[in-house]
Amino acid sequence: MSAPSTSPAVRVPFAELQALLQTILQRHGCSAAVAAVLAHNCASAQRDGAHSHGVFRIPGYVSTLVSGWVDGTALPQVTDVASGYVRVDAGGGFAQPALAAARALLVEKARSAGIAVLAIHNSHHFAALWPDVEPFADEGLVALSVVNSMTCVVPHGARKPLFGTNPIAFAAPCAGHDPIVFDMATSAMAHGDVQIAARAGQQLPEGMGVDASGQPTTDPKAILEGGALLPFGGHKGSALSMMVELLAAALTGGHFSWEFDWSGHPGAKTPWTGQLIIVIDPSKAEGERFAQRSRELVEQMQAVGLSRMPGERRYREREVAGREGVALTEQELAGLKELAG
Amino acid sequence: MSAPSTSPAVRVPFAELQALLQTILQRHGCSAAVAAVLAHNCASAQRDGAHSHGVFRIPGYVSTLVSGWVDGTALPQVTDVASGYVRVDAGGGFAQPALAAARALLVEKARSAGIAVLAIHNSHHFAALWPDVEPFADEGLVALSVVNSMTCVVPHGARKPLFGTNPIAFAAPCAGHDPIVFDMATSAMAHGDVQIAARAGQQLPEGMGVDASGQPTTDPKAILEGGALLPFGGHKGSALSMMVELLAAALTGGHFSWEFDWSGHPGAKTPWTGQLIIVIDPSKAEGERFAQRSRELVEQMQAVGLSRMPGERRYREREVAGREGVALTEQELAGLKELAG
Repeated sequence: MSAPSTSPAVRVPFAELQALLQTILQRHGCSAAVAAVLAHNCASAQRDGAHSHGVFRIPGYVSTLVSGWVDGTALPQVTDVASGYVRVDAGGGFAQPALAAARALLVEKARSAGIAVLAIHNSHHFAALWPDVEPFADEGLVALSVVNSMTCVVPHGARKPLFGTNPIAFAAPCAGHDPIVFDMATSAMAHGDVQIAARAGQQLPEGMGVDASGQPTTDPKAILEGGALLPFGGHKGSALSMMVELLAAALTGGHFSWEFDWSGHPGAKTPWTGQLIIVIDPSKAEGERFAQRSRELVEQMQAVGLSRMPGERRYREREVAGREGVALTEQELAGLKELAG
Repeated sequence: MSAPSTSPAVRVPFAELQALLQTILQRHGCSAAVAAVLAHNCASAQRDGAHSHGVFRIPGYVSTLVSGWVDGTALPQVTDVASGYVRVDAGGGFAQPALAAARALLVEKARSAGIAVLAIHNSHHFAALWPDVEPFADEGLVALSVVNSMTCVVPHGARKPLFGTNPIAFAAPCAGHDPIVFDMATSAMAHGDVQIAARAGQQLPEGMGVDASGQPTTDPKAILEGGALLPFGGHKGSALSMMVELLAAALTGGHFSWEFDWSGHPGAKTPWTGQLIIVIDPSKAEGERFAQRSRELVEQMQAVGLSRMPGERRYREREVAGREGVALTEQELAGLKELAG
């Protein structure tokens, strides 16, 4: 979903936007190291047109840091658990620096054992999930990640919300082609997209959520104010969301989406949960052939009429941004500059 | 979906049904070892009320074996690839004996490395997927499996079918409770359930599939005769189905769902593809705590009003069958006895 606005668009070089975001994050309580990781992540989402996780998120990062809910200076503690298992205690900080701290060890294990898992707990994830997995595909690896979030989804057949939007992201290399990457909320809609629709005064399609009384609604504000989202695809999406709670929280040692209490931290927006990342080295079974087979899949999908591969829109936006700079509105840019002080 | 029939139901002890199925499979070309694995699998599905993969499948097994399409005597070749990676060439036989041959090594690796993957290729999978994963949860492990099948699903946004029904199955232990297990086709409906509806002359709900001209239909026969299924949950289910092609076929070295040609084998029903199984040892991060956390999840799901957990109906049917025998119709039993000779 694009960020709807009547404010004119401007283009800013990626490095400039990243530096601006880094300044904002450091000014509000992040260490330089954490701010660098988050600024790159957020600027990348904006660059790729993933606006629900772009600069739209910066006020939420800031209010959360100011509230004391997240530790912007946390040092992740990496434990080498077994030949295919890495664990990180994110120390109440963000998940992305925890991944960055463990990443080299995770890749080394995946290449040696053929598969490896990274279990992050005590972590806050407030970003898109595809930036976590796409770089593995750039290195020829296959990656799958899940993260749970905060109670806002009614399990299929239940009466009240319990699960988070609990996204699943996947990345695989593809010969002579951008990696195949998807990142999907297991809710009918991503929370950020509901927020954007509410801000823009837009109605949602049917089947996305319920209001505070549990009745179906197309009003994004009714979903955000006491209502809840539904899982995508009925009982199947609901089962996948349940799986995400088990893998991202129970398995890692993180909180379930309903377990943390941020009521003492007004302004807190970041779910304090866990994240799991599984990385497979496809060369272990099929040598260099995997990326070629992946390419054959893409060609067949195109042959049956698919006009756009998952993730393709991001690559197109990225290419334009590489030439012309990252698009944001004048209003957004002015807001960022104000936050940077 | 239950097997609809006007024929009266009978109850047969599990061991008796299993022996009958084993006789049928051996009589039509399976080795004793392969027949034992398949008979147990199929009798288990019938026992648990999973009728689309119960004795309903036996005529398909028989016609496939008779056609020479599958090797019922194949000896799986297991390769110990790396500390977390096992590969099996099923030799053009069934996937279940390949899993059985590699299972001990896979579990040993998962317990040692924390995670391990089994990549099966050159295999036929004609059964439910939950029997492959549930036993891992019985041993305290978490398992995820995917298998691709045969072209019958139109990718979201495409015009023609390409993907198989491509199920995903997941199993996790749960303290003082049956394991949490789900097995979902990434198509809007499982192929076996469409066949059962066609046989019973029932119409399907809307959104399940299209006819030969690509138009939406609720007629199961129109889907089976030149039509196709749709993915569940629109573009998200479609992306998951694509992921299954990549993991079960490209990664393992198996065929994609559209790559095998069984036209020279009239009666052939079993997709000749691949299967991936990932097994994680949850004790590596959280000791014995995982199953307790899993139990907490179940209790919370019940607290928000969920009346039935995924897999729960199977456990109930299994319990009844344990006391009273496995239910099938007189007509089905007579058909099996005839096939047994």
